This record gives sequence, C-alpha cells and structure tokens, in this order.
Amino acid sequence: MKKIVFALPGNEALAKYFANTIQADLGVTEIRNFPDGETYVRILSSVEGKEVIVVCTLHQPDAKLLPLLFICNLLRDLKVRSICLVAPYLAYMRQDKQFNPGEAVTSAYFAKLLSLQVDRLVTVDPHLHRRVSMKEIYSIPCEVLHADGLISEWVKKYIPNALLIGPDSESEQWVSEVAKNAGVPFIVLEKIRHGDCDVEISVPKVEGYKNYTPVLVDDIISTARTMIETVELLKKAGMKPPVCIGVHAVFAGNAYKDLIKSGVSKVITCNTIFHESNAIDIGEIIAPHLL
Amino acid sequence: MKKIVFALPGNEALAKYFANTIQADLGVTEIRNFPDGETYVRILSSVEGKEVIVVCTLHQPDAKLLPLLFICNLLRDLKVRSICLVAPYLAYMRQDKQFNPGEAVTSAYFAKLLSLQVDRLVTVDPHLHRRVSMKEIYSIPCEVLHADGLISEWVKKYIPNALLIGPDSESEQWVSEVAKNAGVPFIVLEKIRHGDCDVEISVPKVEGYKNYTPVLVDDIISTARTMIETVELLKKAGMKPPVCIGVHAVFAGNAYKDLIKSGVSKVITCNTIFHESNAIDIGEIIAPHLL
Repeated sequence: MKKIVFALPGNEALAKYFANTIQADLGVTEIRNFPDGETYVRILSSVEGKEVIVVCTLHQPDAKLLPLLFICNLLRDLKVRSICLVAPYLAYMRQDKQFNPGEAVTSAYFAKLLSLQVDRLVTVDPHLHRRVSMKEIYSIPCEVLHADGLISEWVKKYIPNALLIGPDSESEQWVSEVAKNAGVPFIVLEKIRHGDCDVEISVPKVEGYKNYTPVLVDDIISTARTMIETVELLKKAGMKPPVCIGVHAVFAGNAYKDLIKSGVSKVITCNTIFHESNAIDIGEIIAPHLL
Repeated sequence: MKKIVFALPGNEALAKYFANTIQADLGVTEIRNFPDGETYVRILSSVEGKEVIVVCTLHQPDAKLLPLLFICNLLRDLKVRSICLVAPYLAYMRQDKQFNPGEAVTSAYFAKLLSLQVDRLVTVDPHLHRRVSMKEIYSIPCEVLHADGLISEWVKKYIPNALLIGPDSESEQWVSEVAKNAGVPFIVLEKIRHGDCDVEISVPKVEGYKNYTPVLVDDIISTARTMIETVELLKKAGMKPPVCIGVHAVFAGNAYKDLIKSGVSKVITCNTIFHESNAIDIGEIIAPHLL
C-alpha cells in the first residue's frame, strides 16, 4: 500500500517533493481558522491502514502544536497504520536542564507530548546542546539528519577562496567538518552569552585571510546578534563582506533585515523553515529516510 | 495546608481575587517568550504537596495550550497534590460532531488533552450546543457555572424598562431565565446560519415595546455579526439603541469596533475574557467553588 504525505500549513512544498520523490500519495486536508482563532481540521483523503508522513516544521511552535496534535488524533481515529512526523526544524531543544530551581525543562515536556502522538520523528540538525542523543528525551525512534554535506557542496560551488568561520567553540566540530568537505580553511570564534539578546565575541587573528571570503556558518539564526556582531568585527579587521549561512532560518523579529543591513555579502539558509533566504534544499537528504 | 493560585499571563487579576477571597497563597511564576517564540516557564513558589489552582482563560487557544501544558507538567514534577484548572472561557466547544466525513472532532481532542493534565476543571457557560453535559467529552470532574444571575442583577440595577432579546431559539431557555430573574419581558429571534460570518435573522413584532430599552444577550460575542444585524433590524423597527450583553468577550478581529459603531447604546461583557467592555465580575460566582 502506498504511503501518504500530509502537510501542515506552510509545509506544502516539501510535502509535495517527498510525495513525488518516494512515490507516495499527497494527502488532501482542509485546515483553517475560525474567526475566534480556533482551528478546523479535516482530512479528505482515504488513510485507513496506511503509513502516514506528516510534514510540520516547528519554529514559532506554540501556535503550531495544537493543530498538529489534532491532525495526529484524527489520523488515529481514521485508523492509520503509523505516523512519521517530519519536522525539519525541531523546537524546544534549548531548555534541556534546570539552570535554576523551579524551571520547566521544556525540551523534555515537548518531547513527551510529541512522543505520545507520533511513532517516529525525522529532523535536521536539532540543537542538541548539552545532550548527546535524542534518545535522552524522545521515547520514539528519531532520525537525525545533517545539512553539513549540502552546505559544503554549496560553499565549494559558489564561494571561491572561502574561509569558514564558526561562531563559537560549540560549533567547532561541525564547522571543521563543513570546511574539510568543502576543502577550505576555517577558524572558530569565542562567544560569551550574557542574556537572550546580549552576546560578546572575540575574533582570533584573521590577518592571514584578507583575500578570502569569510563564510559564517551556524545551525540556527534566531536574533542574528552573534552573526551581526561577528560581521562588524570582521569588517573592522579589514575582511571582505562575509556570506552568512544558517541551517535554520528562525529569524526572530527584525533579525533578517538587521543582518542584511550589517554589511554581509549575502545570507543563505536551508529550507528547514520556509524563508526568502532559502537556497539549500534539504528535501534530498530527508526523502531517502521516508521510503 | 493553604491552597496556591497561579495565573497564566493575562489572568493575574482574577487569580489575585481568588487568592484573597479563599485565603490561598498567590503563586509566583516567571513566564516569558524567547526571541524565537518559545516559552520559558519557572515556578518560584513552594508547591510540594499543595492543592494548586491554575487560572487560564482559553480564548485564542492555540498559542495558550502549550504554556498551560508546560506549567501543569512542571507542577507535577514539583509534586503538587492536585491541579484545578479555572478556565472562565473554555475553547473548542463548537466542533462537537463530524458534520462531514474526515472532520476532527476538536472538542473531544481538546478535552482529552486537558483531562490528561488537570484533575478538575471550573468554567463559566461553556458553549454546550448539541451536548447535554461536559461528561460527554471531559473525563475529569467539571464545575459548570452560569453568569445568568449576575446578568439579571446587572440589568435590574442599570437598565430601567428593559426588554431582553435572545438572538436565536437556542438562547431561549437562557434568556427567559435572565428575564424572569430581572423581572423584565423578553422576545427571541430566529437565526439562520449560512456560514461562519454569514447569518440571517428575523425579528418578530416589537411594536409593543417602543418605550423599552432592548437588551441583547448572548453567551459568546465572536464576530458580532448576529448582534450587529439585530441592532440594525431593531433600529429599522424604530426601537431605542440597544444594550448588548455577552458572557464571553471573544471579539474576533474588528468585531468590537464594528459593534460599537452599529448604533448600540453600550456593550457589556463578563470578565471571563479580559476586555475593555468587562462590567460584570464573574469572580464571585467562581471563588466559592475553589474553597
């Protein structure tokens, strides 16, 4: 029996790509808001006994969760065989321990909620931070995919004479891997975080790289404060305008505009979150895992 | 041991009133959004072993559910004795059956989610529609309170020579009760619903009531289309500008402004949802049930 792929609103393009690529059906839904803000969900395709893939990236997650839970509940009522959630961007990975007494470890609570509703999760570069494996919080099988290979290819193809720059020590292993596969040098900066929006960065000696195009790479671009500060420091150091690459285009508030204005040459992201900066397609690394 | 009352954001005034009235402690929390839209929750009060009351009204419910689930999860982790949810306005009461194949019966799914997290629910005039009792969807004990007594008192006190008007046959029993207790006459209109925003109304003979002040009463004012159309029909019939009373000030989009502009004398609501039209305090009918 053919699998069937459903998109939550905003995920239609990826869902269509997956359906075409793995020869699955594309599910038809009606999902809309009532005037009072409540969500209406209807599934128009036949799903009984089928393996279902639900595509729902999870940035700005609070308002997305309930419609996702509704569709999962409905699929169960319609007697599907299994539900695989594809969340190219996975939310609530940051609060992974109690930094202060009485704090909600939201990554664990969010994982528990999703684990109750779906049978399997596929995601791209979740922000694991202090955790080693998704198994520490998710009780369902999780397929963790990585965009580094696609980013290496992109840098190799489009940026002659690139110097890869990682924003902090946490990114070192990842950036070094991207650099190695792209066949380019890299340096890693030191980041000291004072608050959600308040970050200090030290730039090591870059004098030897004045003829290179700096390529800043990070997993999530959220406030973009780190990148903007780095761009300014690189400018002061006399470097060329950098290319900024992020896996996840979270872009809180005016972050994207501010980053563009900071003097970058361009901003590039993967399409884990739909955004005008998307230039690297993660569909091809996900599709083989949905077969 | 004293009970403790917590407010989700926006519910602080009611929570404080309950704590004062039933001699409970007022819980201290830190609830805020990260720049990327994720929610941070921390409880600063001691809660172990305590009976907890959580106040969270549920209009625009999608973005409110996850913070509420987080705080409930956290309270469990902090070993509270019980959780009572006070949701003066309860969401997802309308989609109470499959009108078409494949529709999510969201009232059942939402009830299941809440029933898993809290031990008891207190609410005011839930929109029961086709259901007779909350027991049909909620597996936890539910205390259903009614604002009709407070509305009767308010009409009696502030509107001389009132004529109560119910918007549709569904409201008849309720409006007749409010009218009886206020000691005023009432009439009930006929409503034909063509869609979410498209409603037709027939006004019965009102010639005998030209010296009365019409008082339109409904449980929920959402798009306010019904009320606005009724106001216009009453104007055409030569009636005085009506007073509009709603239990729940949902007011989707520009509904409140549109209703004000339609030629009403005033718009009055209960404070089940915090809104500038609030004039009838439901705190006093809820508090005795929290003792």
